[in-house]
Amino acid sequence: MEQVFVLGLDPGLSRCGYCVLDASVRSARAVALGVFRTRAGDAVPERLAELLTDFRSLLGEFTPSVMAVERVLFQTNVRTAMGVGQASGVLMAEAAGRGISIVEYSPNEVKSAVAGDGSASKEQVAAMVQRLLDLAAPPRPADAADAAAVALTHVAFATTTGAA
Amino acid sequence: MEQVFVLGLDPGLSRCGYCVLDASVRSARAVALGVFRTRAGDAVPERLAELLTDFRSLLGEFTPSVMAVERVLFQTNVRTAMGVGQASGVLMAEAAGRGISIVEYSPNEVKSAVAGDGSASKEQVAAMVQRLLDLAAPPRPADAADAAAVALTHVAFATTTGAA
Repeated sequence: MEQVFVLGLDPGLSRCGYCVLDASVRSARAVALGVFRTRAGDAVPERLAELLTDFRSLLGEFTPSVMAVERVLFQTNVRTAMGVGQASGVLMAEAAGRGISIVEYSPNEVKSAVAGDGSASKEQVAAMVQRLLDLAAPPRPADAADAAAVALTHVAFATTTGAA
Repeated sequence: MEQVFVLGLDPGLSRCGYCVLDASVRSARAVALGVFRTRAGDAVPERLAELLTDFRSLLGEFTPSVMAVERVLFQTNVRTAMGVGQASGVLMAEAAGRGISIVEYSPNEVKSAVAGDGSASKEQVAAMVQRLLDLAAPPRPADAADAAAVALTHVAFATTTGAA
């Protein structure tokens, strides 16, 4: 059976969480899980270019058919919010340019799909990610867990709707 | 004398202003001035990919040594602000990846450099852009005028500091 990869992303400039799931098996399996990091002391354009290079390496290794991203809502911290917007823009443009479908899910949809409760805490979501992916521990940092959660959300939605 | 191009950008998703100045002549001359547009009804990733394609065409025509951008501050409109962040991220990553220097100027620096007054109105800035670039009318839409203003700011700063 051909492998179908679903990529989950939690965009950010300092830490960008990513998770690639092999969705062709009955119980989705993580084949890549982690964070891309850039240094806060470096200039923003260089950090964005570095993030793009890391992202391209990942896409080269696992070509996802779908990229799932949590819909970005604004944080109270203006600096962080701008970094999230800039990082998500870079990643979305690259993926769209390669013909990868991009699907956004609201934070509520992610929490409901993964933890069965739209008001679940970050810890509850990370614990469910651990269980669903049969990991030894909840993914750290939280950005990696969030990326896995949105990828799992897409798999759940795709299975339900038949739009794998 | 070799041409030196300075690119000014006013990032946005619906309208992204751009201005390429030939800064090798005594009085800077606009060789490209306008806006990249994407349709509000299209999906954001496709809009970002389209913006990137347009941007690459411009860079292919005029290879700037410097890209000047107005430092993005948050607007009150969350949707617009996210689009500005995403668009600026895409453009900065592309330019940085090509080795183009990126310089940011605050809105105050731009107004002071172009109109001689940090609290100048948008109309005053556009009128000064018209005068400095010897245009028949102030550039329209405002995004194009803003892009020209930040490019002119860089030329003024570079002349003053000798960092052309």
